Amino acid sequence: MKNSTGQQPLVTSISVVAEPPSLQDNTADIDRLRIAVRNKLPPALEGRPVVVPFTAMAGLSRRFRKAGFVGNALVNVLPHELQLVDFQQDISDNIPAMALDLGTTHLEATLVDLTTGEIMAHTHAPNGQMRYGADILSRIHYAEGHDEGTKGLVRLQQAVVTTINEMVADLAIQAGIEADAIRALSVSGNTTMVHLLLGLSPHHICREPYTPLVGSPDPFSAGEIGVGINTLASVWILPSIGSYFGGDLISGILASGLDRMEKTSMLIDVGTNAEVVLGNRDWLIACAGAAGPALEGGVAKMGMRAGPGAIEHVLLDRKSWRLQVKTINDQPAVGICGSGLIELVAQLFLAGIVDIRGKLCRDTVAGSEKRRAFIRERLIEGEEGLSFMVTPAKESGHGKPVLLAQVDLDAMMRSKAAMYAILTTLTSQVGVEFSDLDHIYVAGAFGKHIDPVAAITLGMLPDLPLSTYIPVGNSSLHGAERILLSEEARRLSLEIGRKITYIELNVNQEFMLRFSGSRFIPHTDPALFPSVPVVRTEDFP
Amino acid sequence: MKNSTGQQPLVTSISVVAEPPSLQDNTADIDRLRIAVRNKLPPALEGRPVVVPFTAMAGLSRRFRKAGFVGNALVNVLPHELQLVDFQQDISDNIPAMALDLGTTHLEATLVDLTTGEIMAHTHAPNGQMRYGADILSRIHYAEGHDEGTKGLVRLQQAVVTTINEMVADLAIQAGIEADAIRALSVSGNTTMVHLLLGLSPHHICREPYTPLVGSPDPFSAGEIGVGINTLASVWILPSIGSYFGGDLISGILASGLDRMEKTSMLIDVGTNAEVVLGNRDWLIACAGAAGPALEGGVAKMGMRAGPGAIEHVLLDRKSWRLQVKTINDQPAVGICGSGLIELVAQLFLAGIVDIRGKLCRDTVAGSEKRRAFIRERLIEGEEGLSFMVTPAKESGHGKPVLLAQVDLDAMMRSKAAMYAILTTLTSQVGVEFSDLDHIYVAGAFGKHIDPVAAITLGMLPDLPLSTYIPVGNSSLHGAERILLSEEARRLSLEIGRKITYIELNVNQEFMLRFSGSRFIPHTDPALFPSVPVVRTEDFP
Repeated sequence: MKNSTGQQPLVTSISVVAEPPSLQDNTADIDRLRIAVRNKLPPALEGRPVVVPFTAMAGLSRRFRKAGFVGNALVNVLPHELQLVDFQQDISDNIPAMALDLGTTHLEATLVDLTTGEIMAHTHAPNGQMRYGADILSRIHYAEGHDEGTKGLVRLQQAVVTTINEMVADLAIQAGIEADAIRALSVSGNTTMVHLLLGLSPHHICREPYTPLVGSPDPFSAGEIGVGINTLASVWILPSIGSYFGGDLISGILASGLDRMEKTSMLIDVGTNAEVVLGNRDWLIACAGAAGPALEGGVAKMGMRAGPGAIEHVLLDRKSWRLQVKTINDQPAVGICGSGLIELVAQLFLAGIVDIRGKLCRDTVAGSEKRRAFIRERLIEGEEGLSFMVTPAKESGHGKPVLLAQVDLDAMMRSKAAMYAILTTLTSQVGVEFSDLDHIYVAGAFGKHIDPVAAITLGMLPDLPLSTYIPVGNSSLHGAERILLSEEARRLSLEIGRKITYIELNVNQEFMLRFSGSRFIPHTDPALFPSVPVVRTEDFP
Repeated sequence: MKNSTGQQPLVTSISVVAEPPSLQDNTADIDRLRIAVRNKLPPALEGRPVVVPFTAMAGLSRRFRKAGFVGNALVNVLPHELQLVDFQQDISDNIPAMALDLGTTHLEATLVDLTTGEIMAHTHAPNGQMRYGADILSRIHYAEGHDEGTKGLVRLQQAVVTTINEMVADLAIQAGIEADAIRALSVSGNTTMVHLLLGLSPHHICREPYTPLVGSPDPFSAGEIGVGINTLASVWILPSIGSYFGGDLISGILASGLDRMEKTSMLIDVGTNAEVVLGNRDWLIACAGAAGPALEGGVAKMGMRAGPGAIEHVLLDRKSWRLQVKTINDQPAVGICGSGLIELVAQLFLAGIVDIRGKLCRDTVAGSEKRRAFIRERLIEGEEGLSFMVTPAKESGHGKPVLLAQVDLDAMMRSKAAMYAILTTLTSQVGVEFSDLDHIYVAGAFGKHIDPVAAITLGMLPDLPLSTYIPVGNSSLHGAERILLSEEARRLSLEIGRKITYIELNVNQEFMLRFSGSRFIPHTDPALFPSVPVVRTEDFP
């Protein structure tokens, strides 16, 4: 049975009407079922071997008999074989499967009905590995040691499986099903997170020449890694290309459709790393770099993930010198998330309070008295230098002021410089101009919440018409959903891996040069950003 | 690498020289190895997908790196895929694999070097399930119950795995290797024994319409059933066709080559059942029936398996009336095995002491005084009727006389009648005369030790030139060895299963009629046995 989208999902149900055993035909149960399934395969699956996993046999036979040899066989549709895994007497309304975005800090998942493609439930959770290390490098380090006699790698594997199993339980409750009824799992994550989920050593990932242990693992069963869905559910890991180019980006390419477009476009995914792909249906080139932390809640003092009380939008009226902030859920401010940070710094730059070097400047000479009063009130000299007070203590959600310190600003400047350097390095590799790009797809929370005008003002994203920028949401998760639903997507996910050219930025000289040039607002070459005004403090009212 | 016999063994080693990872090529370890193996496949394996089992990845990567990316990849050669399971730095001299004849009462195994086809070690052991039931039916019964809280099926599975693991240890010690170095296992056994080994319920095997749970299981890993060879060793179960036609006979067909012969021949395997196949390269027909127990040590009073002290040959000089017996290892007699029993009854028949109905007869009137004295001395009237004393108490190994009781004789008569009825039913199904047969291959201890003249005298085997009969030894074990060594044999084992026509004798009317006609010595129609003399007691000296 194809699903209603006309594609071949990762698990399919084959309607079977077999003759009961008789003295004339006492073919064994499993062989009888296998023959019946083989005779009912849709054209797209014909000729693919039908195998029965060892652990499926007893249950299959029992349920096939109990159903009177009539019902639905559940089949895992793998590239080289069809795995006959279960038999259902009743025609089930749906075949639930789980799509998982396996993030370093956060996991997000949906439950997808493979018969219709509909989303049955949605959940998310912080990665249970966080307590063992906030970022990839500290996790790799932890994996290599021992903690109270247990290998770090084992603890990390258990931690993330525990998180996933909590999400499984949540999805099952939302959908009103047993966890055992979830028949497949697709996983989209960066290379290190995939290694830790599989219990494989990430040792060589962060060491030159940055070689993963596995890029394209074959499908295996959920039971083999302790994920508490159906034990014979097939787990499909989106392939990674390099240590810093994971399945999450392959997933993003699938979700955006970059690999099937005639015109050249770009995909930007800012998670723990900034990962960027450029190309079209004929070619794909990609690179990744550490541009993310400052944009993903990793800022030292007041950064936070998008959550209640996080400042997500900032507007500074440069006539009245009033600062307006919008927080998530309109709760009192407790911090600032990536999109809020970019808007804040862009606003401060346009107000002459952050200079072209990205430094807070206490210039209380130029402009109107209102401006000078604003600066006197908001710029605070502390032990660690200047800070900008975004929200005073009496208005905040935690009784402390929400501050933008110079160290935070420095981190953001590095991130924005890295981002632009990544984009220019990538385009220059293939001789493409930014103006040649049809679209720039921006994934993740970054893509969803960011104001492209602010990002352009800072010189983080190229100065292109705003219609060029298209937010694509959690493309890692959407790609994982497509993997569950379409054999074509599964085939493409492997093909993309083979087709893509990956540039290792860690050792790229050009990137380093471009990075230096990008450490100004908007850039050492302002001609690259014609839409960004030149700020003259003396002009301010 | 093909083995030296020019065939494709179940495990093969592929010599690999891969480039170490570099910044120019940081392909992941497993993917690198997979590509290297794919590029070195012999023509016969080209194009078959190369998969890496989940549990193999960590070890494979570690050993591939440790070996400096140069060495030998071990590959399980399965019908639809090649499983990349291990990597060895040193070119190993051999690839040991285990062939197992899984008998109801007895297990026999060899260790085969897959690179040369040579036998490295040989062992055998009684089936550890014996304590839970001597025959198939009692095991099936036991499997369905509980014993001290544990399911009978579980106990039986554990019992036979324990026996196999003791044999594994023995083989490894003999060959001077670690058990972990044994890389494959082929199993040839009857349908019930295979079910019990796999932990699958044999419930329906003995109940009309006699349907096994599985006939042709897909290969799985040794670790899945707890057999203590390499955990990723592939286990190949010879397929069975029906509940009473097991993989042991498919194995016998493979070993004898019946399925590849131009002329029609027959294969007889007497184990717990008598299993018979008739055919040639164009067609195969088979049946099985309970002809065995009396011939395999199942006789009530004095039957025993071939072992030290078992009477295996009997000669009664009908002039001197002296009875000579030959025991195994020339030890004092403690019982009589199948071949001895057949010779004894044939001799007694020719001496007029067993009549055409298979009854001991105390005719002390006819013949010479010596004959009459012999009968008086040897025929003993007991509570349960007449017995023939084969060995007096003072000459036996256990201080008791070795007796052939009438009940033993009755059992043997049923077995011999069943055997001949099976053979005639089978030939009549396809209109073949016994005289059309090129050869009759006789497998097992029965084939090895039996005197065809005696069997013909009793009307157990057809009256054909003695050169027709060819003993083929433990063909079940030899077939299992061929499975390990040759992909053609593995392909044929599945093809034979599909090609063979199986006749269920339990419900065959013709068989029942022929069985009745065969309950005389040699037969109700003596013209079928021209070489067997008519016994006239009055002619004896």
